[in-house]
Amino acid sequence: MIKIFSPATVANVACGFDVLGFALHTPGDQISMALNNTGRIELHDQTPYRLPLTPEKNVTAVALQSMLDALHSQQGFTITFLSKIMPGSGVGSSAASAAAAVFGANELLGRPFTRPQLVPFAMQGERAASGTAHADNVAPALLGGFTLIRSYTPLDIIPLPHPPLYATIVHPQIEVRTSDSRKILRQEVPIKKAIQQWGNLAGLVAGLFTNDYQLIGRSLHDVIIEPVRALLIPEFYAIKQAAIDAGALGCSISGSGPSIFALSPDEATARQAAQAMHAHFDRLGIDSHLFVSPINREGVKIMENEG
Amino acid sequence: MIKIFSPATVANVACGFDVLGFALHTPGDQISMALNNTGRIELHDQTPYRLPLTPEKNVTAVALQSMLDALHSQQGFTITFLSKIMPGSGVGSSAASAAAAVFGANELLGRPFTRPQLVPFAMQGERAASGTAHADNVAPALLGGFTLIRSYTPLDIIPLPHPPLYATIVHPQIEVRTSDSRKILRQEVPIKKAIQQWGNLAGLVAGLFTNDYQLIGRSLHDVIIEPVRALLIPEFYAIKQAAIDAGALGCSISGSGPSIFALSPDEATARQAAQAMHAHFDRLGIDSHLFVSPINREGVKIMENEG
Repeated sequence: MIKIFSPATVANVACGFDVLGFALHTPGDQISMALNNTGRIELHDQTPYRLPLTPEKNVTAVALQSMLDALHSQQGFTITFLSKIMPGSGVGSSAASAAAAVFGANELLGRPFTRPQLVPFAMQGERAASGTAHADNVAPALLGGFTLIRSYTPLDIIPLPHPPLYATIVHPQIEVRTSDSRKILRQEVPIKKAIQQWGNLAGLVAGLFTNDYQLIGRSLHDVIIEPVRALLIPEFYAIKQAAIDAGALGCSISGSGPSIFALSPDEATARQAAQAMHAHFDRLGIDSHLFVSPINREGVKIMENEG
Repeated sequence: MIKIFSPATVANVACGFDVLGFALHTPGDQISMALNNTGRIELHDQTPYRLPLTPEKNVTAVALQSMLDALHSQQGFTITFLSKIMPGSGVGSSAASAAAAVFGANELLGRPFTRPQLVPFAMQGERAASGTAHADNVAPALLGGFTLIRSYTPLDIIPLPHPPLYATIVHPQIEVRTSDSRKILRQEVPIKKAIQQWGNLAGLVAGLFTNDYQLIGRSLHDVIIEPVRALLIPEFYAIKQAAIDAGALGCSISGSGPSIFALSPDEATARQAAQAMHAHFDRLGIDSHLFVSPINREGVKIMENEG
């Protein structure tokens, strides 16, 4: 039996819609996992979230099953969800579960796959969760750090370096469903906005390579997705401004929201940004959960081996 | 009197429409330039191209005048165009002229500006030439190497590193006007295509930083502009394939065309790509001019000082 920690992740990262993500140290999922002799995936839930325990409806099991199918394996697994990122928070809750399962199974089966090879299986969990097999959460959950999805067909994942960066996550206690959050996006975008977006993404990548905090900050702008999704978050722009005023390099919506992330060069600034955003939500009468974490360079990992 | 060499440049570079460009060693413009006491910009043409010699209609003079205006200067200049990139070729002919003039004047005036500060003046020449003050040719002409225009407002130019790369330029002798080439572009693009494009641009930037030729090659795809502009170049896709088959990492339209560029890791491959593309145009009965050049890391420069 192994226990696994699988990290929350921030997808999109302002200018990198559907292609960029990074991993956190906190929050994260914890599961325990063991082989069994039933030939089935058996799920147990110790979290408060009443997770669906029918394998076909559980993203963790869907991801694991796609991996077992690729191995033509009938192996059974027993998975217990010990603690969980709150579903629907916008920090890759389903991705963390899917990454945990495929990583854990890979370890228990003697590592038939490399970490990058696990990404497509975890993506099947994402497809089950949101209807789209996006990789911008599962790739950083599995590989750690910043990851670029250069291409989906064929899948081409590029790990990006980065200077020390601290993420602030503020999760207002309002509900935004990933599938709804995608539905409100326009299918066509003005070419002028697209040019601004890819200029910023290229600038962000350059800033990550050169450890240029100012360039990272100047590049953390989303002129396409954020203006639409901001409508789902009360006073988003005021809260973003509060983070910037507190010293954050940039601030935008994490994934499909409602969580908001900010990036700062040091932990003290990240905590000040957290307090500023929390205080603003507080004045609106909206409770919010806070997380401050350096970028997690490691990704999903075994916590302890009790086998 | 100084003589100045100002390089041709490849803008867009497949996935980087309006934001990316690089400089060549050949072809290029050569001008001579001197201060005069007339208070006017006097133009002389020794090229075969019958350049407009009225200052208001000459991109070189327009760029220079915008610089003089910023300095509140009434200084006169005498400029002689000695040799010139063929206008309308798609390798930054107007940008080379504009860069030459503002660089040369800056030298003659004791360098009141840094090279990056000259970019906005040269952009005014581009505005006169094509109606759009784009910077993706003038920035690499002035700064050398690969340059990213992260943002136009405010202007933010990021020099990018690169491994040794050899460019092949094939200029078919057909006419495509920059302004026409821009008019046929759609004002709205599908979000799915935009995502592919910015994934590739981010991948290209990462490949340039990591000297990863394979990643550079995988990223040199343009799914938005090339499919439209390819219609202006006979058998573009067959010619592109010929370059790839010859070993080039990637191939696309240079700027607004009709020149086609390819990038190769070594000179021999770049020459093979040149021959393959030339031979294909030859079979179509279209003459084409060939240039093979490493990336020019230096940009516009003084050739000799005869003062």
